[in-house]
Order: sequence, then C-alpha cells, then structure tokens
Amino acid sequence: MTPTSSVTQMRAEIEEQPQALRATLDALLPRTGEVAALGRQTRQVLFIARGTSDNAAVYGSYLVQVRAGRLATLASPSVATAYRSRLDLSGVLAVALSQSGRTEEIIETLAWAADCGARTLAITNGAGSPLAEAADVALVTEAGVERAVPATKTFTTALATLAVLAIGLAADTEGAEPLDAGELRSVPDEIERLLATLGSPAELDPIISGLAGVGGVVVSGRGFAYAAALEFALKLKEACYLHAMGLSFADLLHGPIAVVDGRTPAVIMAAGSGPTLDGAVALAGRVITAGATAYGIGGGPALALQCAYALPGPRLPDWLAPIGLITAGQLVTEGLARRLGLNPDTPRGLSKVTQTN
Amino acid sequence: MTPTSSVTQMRAEIEEQPQALRATLDALLPRTGEVAALGRQTRQVLFIARGTSDNAAVYGSYLVQVRAGRLATLASPSVATAYRSRLDLSGVLAVALSQSGRTEEIIETLAWAADCGARTLAITNGAGSPLAEAADVALVTEAGVERAVPATKTFTTALATLAVLAIGLAADTEGAEPLDAGELRSVPDEIERLLATLGSPAELDPIISGLAGVGGVVVSGRGFAYAAALEFALKLKEACYLHAMGLSFADLLHGPIAVVDGRTPAVIMAAGSGPTLDGAVALAGRVITAGATAYGIGGGPALALQCAYALPGPRLPDWLAPIGLITAGQLVTEGLARRLGLNPDTPRGLSKVTQTN
Repeated sequence: MTPTSSVTQMRAEIEEQPQALRATLDALLPRTGEVAALGRQTRQVLFIARGTSDNAAVYGSYLVQVRAGRLATLASPSVATAYRSRLDLSGVLAVALSQSGRTEEIIETLAWAADCGARTLAITNGAGSPLAEAADVALVTEAGVERAVPATKTFTTALATLAVLAIGLAADTEGAEPLDAGELRSVPDEIERLLATLGSPAELDPIISGLAGVGGVVVSGRGFAYAAALEFALKLKEACYLHAMGLSFADLLHGPIAVVDGRTPAVIMAAGSGPTLDGAVALAGRVITAGATAYGIGGGPALALQCAYALPGPRLPDWLAPIGLITAGQLVTEGLARRLGLNPDTPRGLSKVTQTN
Repeated sequence: MTPTSSVTQMRAEIEEQPQALRATLDALLPRTGEVAALGRQTRQVLFIARGTSDNAAVYGSYLVQVRAGRLATLASPSVATAYRSRLDLSGVLAVALSQSGRTEEIIETLAWAADCGARTLAITNGAGSPLAEAADVALVTEAGVERAVPATKTFTTALATLAVLAIGLAADTEGAEPLDAGELRSVPDEIERLLATLGSPAELDPIISGLAGVGGVVVSGRGFAYAAALEFALKLKEACYLHAMGLSFADLLHGPIAVVDGRTPAVIMAAGSGPTLDGAVALAGRVITAGATAYGIGGGPALALQCAYALPGPRLPDWLAPIGLITAGQLVTEGLARRLGLNPDTPRGLSKVTQTN
C-alpha cells in the first residue's frame, strides 16, 4: 500500500514537532519543583520502557548522570513481569515512559517498583492513562494525537520532558553543572529552522539515494547522541524494513565493525561540539578504511569533511542535540520509505499500542 | 582468506569449553565467601563492560536481580570516560568484565567507580592484568589463551563466573531463592554432552543452510536467554558479516518485527523450561504469520514444533541454560562462516584486544 496523498501522516507529524515541543515545555517547565521534591527523597533513577520509549530512556540516563549528577540506569521489565523478583528499591526514583500510557508491561513494572519501595514518575502522551494515574508524579507531553505508527513527535517531546526531569533533579545536586532552561526553551525554534533547512529534497536526496539500495546499515552515536542513533535505527527497521543496527561507537569497534562493507554503509550521528565529536570523526575514518560509505548527521564541518555526505545537524548544545538529530533521522526515514514504495504510516506487523508481557 | 586446516582455532576453542568451565569453577566456587563479604558492604550491582563482555553483563544483571534479590544494571562507560561525571556510588558493587583485562576504557571506568565510592570486582581471563590488579576482588577465569578473535570459551567461563558471583551475593539476601551450586557444577558435563550431540553436520546443517543465503537475521531471547541472543547476534556479525539484530521478545514486538520477511528469518533462543518459554513459542508463531522462517535453539518440544527447524538445547535449568544456548550458537557461527568461505578466526577489521575511549 502506498500513500494516497503526497503528504504522509508521518511527515505531517514530523512538521508538528516545533508546536508540540513548545506546548510541552510550556506545560512542564513550571513543574520542575515537583521533580526536585521527588529528587530529594531519592538518590538514583531507574528507567522503565520499551521500544522507542527505551531509546528516550537511554537519553535520559546519560542526561541525569552527566548533568544532574545521579546514577541513572535502565530496568529489565521481565525481572518484574516474568520472574516476579522482589528487590529493595528504596531510594530509587522509577521513571516509566510509554507513549500511550497503556502498555500493560510498563504499567505492571512501575507498580512493581512502587511495591519494592521506589518513588514513581511517568512520562507519557496519554493524559488520564493508567500509567499517568499510577505514578506519584505524571509529566504528560503535549504532542497531541499521533496517528502514524512510527513515533515522531511523541519521541521528541519525551526527550524534552527528560530534559525537564534533569533540570528538576539537578536543582539539589551538589557539584552538578547547572542546566540552562533557556537553552531548552530555544529548542522548538531551532527544530523549526532545521525542518525548513532539511525540508528541501536537495538536502535529503543524497542520503536517501545512498540508503535506497543497501543490504543493511549501521547507525552509530555516542554519549547523548547514542539515543538518537538507536532511535534512527529503529525507525529504519519499522518503516523501511531495513536491516539497521544501532550501536555506540565503542560497541561497534568491539566486533560489529566487521559488518560494514560496500553494501553496508554507516550513518554517524553527533552534536556539533562536545567530548564525543572527535570519536565520531575518527569512526568515519575507520568506516572508510573498511571500504564502506560513511554518512553523517550533524557533527559540524569536521564530520562532514570525512563523510561521503552529511546532513547539517541542529545548532544546539550537546545535551539537547539529540532532539534535532532524530528530527533529521525522521525526515530521512519518511523519505526513504516513500522511495522504496512503502507507506511509513502503517508498517506491516505493527499497531500503535504494543502489548507484551 | 580461508582456513588452511579443516579445524579452525574457533572450533578448537569451542570444544575446549567443558575443560575451561571445570577449571574455572574449581578455582572460583571456593571463593563465594569473598563475594559475600563484598555483598554485605553494598546493596546493588553496576556492571561495566563492552562488546561480548557486555552481553555477559546482561546475563549477570538478570541473574543477580532474579536469583540474588538485588538491583543490578549496566553502566554507560562514556559517562566516566568522555563526560567525566561525578556520581555518588556508595553502596554500589561495580563489576567490570574484560576478557584481556587490558581494555583501557573498562579499567578507567572501574577506577572512576572506585573514586565515586563503589566497591569493585573484576571478571577477566587476564591473570595479573591491570583490571585484575585494580579491583578489590578479582575473579580470574581459567579459559586458557584464546586465539580466535570471536570470543567463545572466555564468554562461557565469564557466564559461569557470574553464576558464582550470584551465589555469593545471594548468601546474605533475605528472601532470595537459594542457588544450587550443584546445578552449576553439572554445567561442564552437560556442555560436553551438548557438543557431542551438536557436533555432527546432520544436526547443524539445516540451520546453517537456512542462514547461508539470507539478507539478515533477527535473534531473539528473553530473560536469562536474552544475553545468549545478543551474543549469538554479535558472533554472526563478527565472523559471518551477517546483518544480525539481537533483541528481546518485547523490544522486537515494539517495532522491529516489521523487518522479518522471506529473506529475513528469526532465530529464537530459549531454555527448555521457565517463565519465558511460552513467549518464545508465541513469538515463533508471530514470525511465521509475518511470512518469515523461524528457527529455534533450545526451548524443548514446544518451540521445536513451531519452528522450521530447531537445534536441541542444553538440559540445564533456566538460570544456567544460556551457557549451553550460546555454545550451540557458536557452532552455528563457526560452521556458517566456513560455509560462506570466511575464516572465523580472523574477521576483517578486528583485533583481539579492543581499545576505545
């Protein structure tokens, strides 16, 4: 089934992101005090999520550790739902993420965390959903209804909400470098500018054409940008049925670098500055040495010079760049799906609310 | 370059696993008291690893949570090495895994954890290595020298060592179901039996032939078996250059299930019993409904009935099955590499000790 109109639902929802981000920040930035209060009762964060929300949680785990000075890691939901293990989670802030707020596995795991002594916070686009109702504090994104199966605006508004979480948690952490809420406020305008820049077929065409004939692709990022790489790889699997492998630079070099070759390029995603940029540039060199094509998303002039082609990234600091990097990835995904004759709005085998247990 | 002899180094090292496991358990099972002492000073575990060792850490995180009743999660090394974040890790037992004990990133991250207040433990095959020297307690595996680049016996002996860790940590945990060291002691004999069973070309050929022509493969497991699925996918990428995507059942259903089709089969790995077996059988059904081929490794008669072909798995309980499941995966990897005309001992682009930072 190919799209019946020239604009897919996915593309429309990509374009709605500046507005969705503004509405979300307007609603949630005033609530950092509630987060800070939860932070004073806990010492560390445990994220609970699956799929796209799990990729958001990866961003959250880096942000809370690097900028809010607290240990933050990811839970394994089956420890709760399949094995029914009993842990001591006193001192833990359990943060559950679910677009719909209706995925049973996530609701059950958050309830388990509370039973084990954790304080709880939900990040969801589902106002009034069971997940929002169950948590001590619910931060509800204002993305509006999302109809295309591949998540776009619910993902970026979840990232913005995780930035709000980090600002709240950093408020009481000694030694944490203060986070600038003004930088976060600037994100919607920058995403708007980026969409205008990348919206032209001339910008997107080289990377879409490059990916249209490949057997598979490695997508890599590190630090904050790792979450964007994981999510772009997931989007390419969902909407383009591409064998996309999302990996951090370091894990890629521990084995999977063997997989890149003339029919398996790499896409490297990086902020325009920050401590992981040099590694991104070096990785592009390794990919080229292996006889494969390297594409860049972001990373500024240094990465663009190494790559066969690089999409310009957002003008955002390292900690906020993933919101722009994945926006570029969404545009590539949507364009590539249409190039391959697929309708990105309704991938085979998927529905909007995923139930697993 | 193809192998010059009929037996590759990788195959020889796969066959050495019963002996390597016996020697490792002989050396380390007497040391559970040292682990228990560290356990009394800490409340949770944070694993530090990359690549194959990271897959071992995934097994460790399930085992410590499900059978030793403590929170156990994975660290993001770049939080330490790239961002130089300062966290409060008092009460944390940091467990670093590295085959060589010489990967700078892992050594540096363990030192950072100690600086942040953690107690430290190393699991490595490198006796006297910098990692072993740096940790409060070092559990050194007795795998002997491993020459093939794809890790085999150093991986399974690391899993056995994680089982020793869990036995030590469970000793003082109220309410944890006691772990049976006798079951662990039986593993080397069972791996020997499994190697004899699977060693015949007739057993391995159907799955090797099935994977020889595909464009990519999804490898899935859940709970304890998830680590075996991740490691088998990594081996297929390293040694066969196959686009192998390792995913838990739940994450697979949250999007990537779209990628399975006539040229992209799934391999499902499961213990012969346990709370995730029903999900494995159901997943095989979903894969077949999508028009793809499902292969099984383990899972007993129920999984075999659903799949086009299933390799028999180990006769081991859920918590120890991954050691046998990955042994089967190693045999498939080695055979598939040779079928494809590749030498599994020396994959392109890789060396035995990986340095990243």
